[in-house]
Amino acid sequence: MTHAGTGQAGAAEEVQRLLRPDLRGRTPYGAPQLDVPVRLNTNENSYPVPQVVVDAVVAALADDVASLNRYPDREFTDLRKALTAYLEKQSGVSVTPEQVWAGNGSNEVLSHIVQAFGGHGRVALGFTPSYSMHPIISETNGMTWVDGLRSAATEPDAFDLSPESAVAQAREHDPSIVFLCSPNNPTGTALPFEVIGAVLDAAPNAIVVVDEAYAEFARPGTRSALTLLAEHPRLVVTRTMSKAFAFAGGRLGYLVAAPELVDALRLVRLPYHLSSPTQTIARIALEHADVMLGTVEVIKHQRDRIVERLAELGARPVASDSNFVLFGGLRDEVATWQALLDAGVLVRDMGIAHHLRVTAGDPDETTAFLEAMTRLAPTHVLAPSADRQEPTA
Amino acid sequence: MTHAGTGQAGAAEEVQRLLRPDLRGRTPYGAPQLDVPVRLNTNENSYPVPQVVVDAVVAALADDVASLNRYPDREFTDLRKALTAYLEKQSGVSVTPEQVWAGNGSNEVLSHIVQAFGGHGRVALGFTPSYSMHPIISETNGMTWVDGLRSAATEPDAFDLSPESAVAQAREHDPSIVFLCSPNNPTGTALPFEVIGAVLDAAPNAIVVVDEAYAEFARPGTRSALTLLAEHPRLVVTRTMSKAFAFAGGRLGYLVAAPELVDALRLVRLPYHLSSPTQTIARIALEHADVMLGTVEVIKHQRDRIVERLAELGARPVASDSNFVLFGGLRDEVATWQALLDAGVLVRDMGIAHHLRVTAGDPDETTAFLEAMTRLAPTHVLAPSADRQEPTA
Repeated sequence: MTHAGTGQAGAAEEVQRLLRPDLRGRTPYGAPQLDVPVRLNTNENSYPVPQVVVDAVVAALADDVASLNRYPDREFTDLRKALTAYLEKQSGVSVTPEQVWAGNGSNEVLSHIVQAFGGHGRVALGFTPSYSMHPIISETNGMTWVDGLRSAATEPDAFDLSPESAVAQAREHDPSIVFLCSPNNPTGTALPFEVIGAVLDAAPNAIVVVDEAYAEFARPGTRSALTLLAEHPRLVVTRTMSKAFAFAGGRLGYLVAAPELVDALRLVRLPYHLSSPTQTIARIALEHADVMLGTVEVIKHQRDRIVERLAELGARPVASDSNFVLFGGLRDEVATWQALLDAGVLVRDMGIAHHLRVTAGDPDETTAFLEAMTRLAPTHVLAPSADRQEPTA
Repeated sequence: MTHAGTGQAGAAEEVQRLLRPDLRGRTPYGAPQLDVPVRLNTNENSYPVPQVVVDAVVAALADDVASLNRYPDREFTDLRKALTAYLEKQSGVSVTPEQVWAGNGSNEVLSHIVQAFGGHGRVALGFTPSYSMHPIISETNGMTWVDGLRSAATEPDAFDLSPESAVAQAREHDPSIVFLCSPNNPTGTALPFEVIGAVLDAAPNAIVVVDEAYAEFARPGTRSALTLLAEHPRLVVTRTMSKAFAFAGGRLGYLVAAPELVDALRLVRLPYHLSSPTQTIARIALEHADVMLGTVEVIKHQRDRIVERLAELGARPVASDSNFVLFGGLRDEVATWQALLDAGVLVRDMGIAHHLRVTAGDPDETTAFLEAMTRLAPTHVLAPSADRQEPTA
């Protein structure tokens, strides 16, 4: 018996030959996972899970693990109830468990939306720069991605999105899915609330996803898209336990939408996608929401401290409703990223010219970052007049 | 501000209007999750996780949970090492961690294969009846599914697949992915080993997936497709911890392939798809493989007992290398399914005329099933001559 293809071509060539054509030559998504004293590159919460929650989780699992021979509850009923209770407490908006859906990270619930309402040949529209998984998930699932524009396209350092601009772009592309991100990652600012309703109007054939991964860090008065759900059957609000909830390792993202829309996601989810331990651990953490969220105010304070100090240094920070700050005015962002790393501080280069993104850590981590930036500023930050001569981003 | 679509049409209509056209009118996959004394419908392992493993898992998690604020190891390095060690022990085949890939259940690793090497317009070929998620995952990801045939198409109750038939069908359809399943679910029998190499030859543009979810239950002398990996860069062998390993609730499926092929899956996986607890719990379970697999021989004995007794009752069982038995000769499989449920025994109706599938449980569960079948046989099982007059499946 002979085996075609083997021997003639190596495995690497075979893989490239058989790979989906649009994936050839791509590199996988992912921030470098480096072992550095101060890691401020992935918007994690720097505070460990409080001991009282650790104890409660371990106690609950002691009962659970023995029955791992059985498949988990496919509909994760208790977890949905816990998410419902949390949302009501956090946002004041009352939803039912039938409106809630969860996955292994918000990436998975975003995938479910794309698989159910997108697919080959349909258009997904987002406004760049935004969360980089939106285009990746859309394209992995065969959609045509349209890179919509923010003001930065014409005005460097202005990353806002006006209702007028969003409406014009939505009308032009007739998308099946629109991604809004509020507070927006990586720029940090919440969207003007009117954008959401305006886009729902301007894109009558679209599911409109408002990614609120950082909602718990928003400045006072920021209104959640959750408050619009009752009137909009095409609106989806996604959230995550990875950020404010300090639960990135537990992988629990969720969405809220009309019950009929949520029900349709059962057509595309992989059965039993949430393990029994995932359901249990997340549920227990949600029951301890007050404790889990106890660090949010400290982190917001560190964020505000970063914004203030970077402004003093001339490294123009973007207003932030998140646990991170995008800042600009850098002569060469790659050089600054490396200089910070050399100082033991890992931040994120988002590929935006003259800008970097830093997570607000605990006070010591924040101090380490700000001290490094203070040392670097004289050589790394452009003078206010000089940067106007730079090519625009 | 008005909102198009709301008020005029209800949420259910909106969802149907916006859903991907090929998903409209479908119903979600899933066996009924009923509360019944004897559940033999999803091929779970009836034995709970041994206490020694429960204790080890809980001890490991006590350390882990505190650091859930951090993202998990995106490359699940330690888990891959543990899977490698297990595979070598179980199958005698030596593989490297770079050849191993894991997901939240084998469904997720199958999705990764389909997303990387399939996609819209490409053909996936499987041989029906087989694992029903193969077509669902292929179609969810835009592939064209071809329902290949087993002998049952011409000869009722014969579910084998010959190399000649597999080769002819592979040549006809030039698939991008071929799904083989050995031991095959729901029929139970391992494939003739020659089929695998023959299909690799006959489908030179295909990734050939051999789904070995039930490999640990195979009868002595059954050779694993793992033994072919060294010579075949297009071969993928998938496995799961859900069956023999008694770990269905932990959701850990995996695959083994050429390192270059595994590396390509990083283009389509969602980053951080495996939570820290999932990685830890699975790793600890694998370190206790001997204990976890301690029930396999008991279950195989119960399976053989089912095969023998059903044959005596005239309910023709298919030869099984799995922890379940497909049996035929039923006058009306829906009526028998209901009669068994009325007796407190839940089995699976796979949609194959005159057939049902039953999982081999512990001795008491197996006895409950066999006693019920013994009572039902006189009215539910066709006489050997009568069934020949029935329309074929």
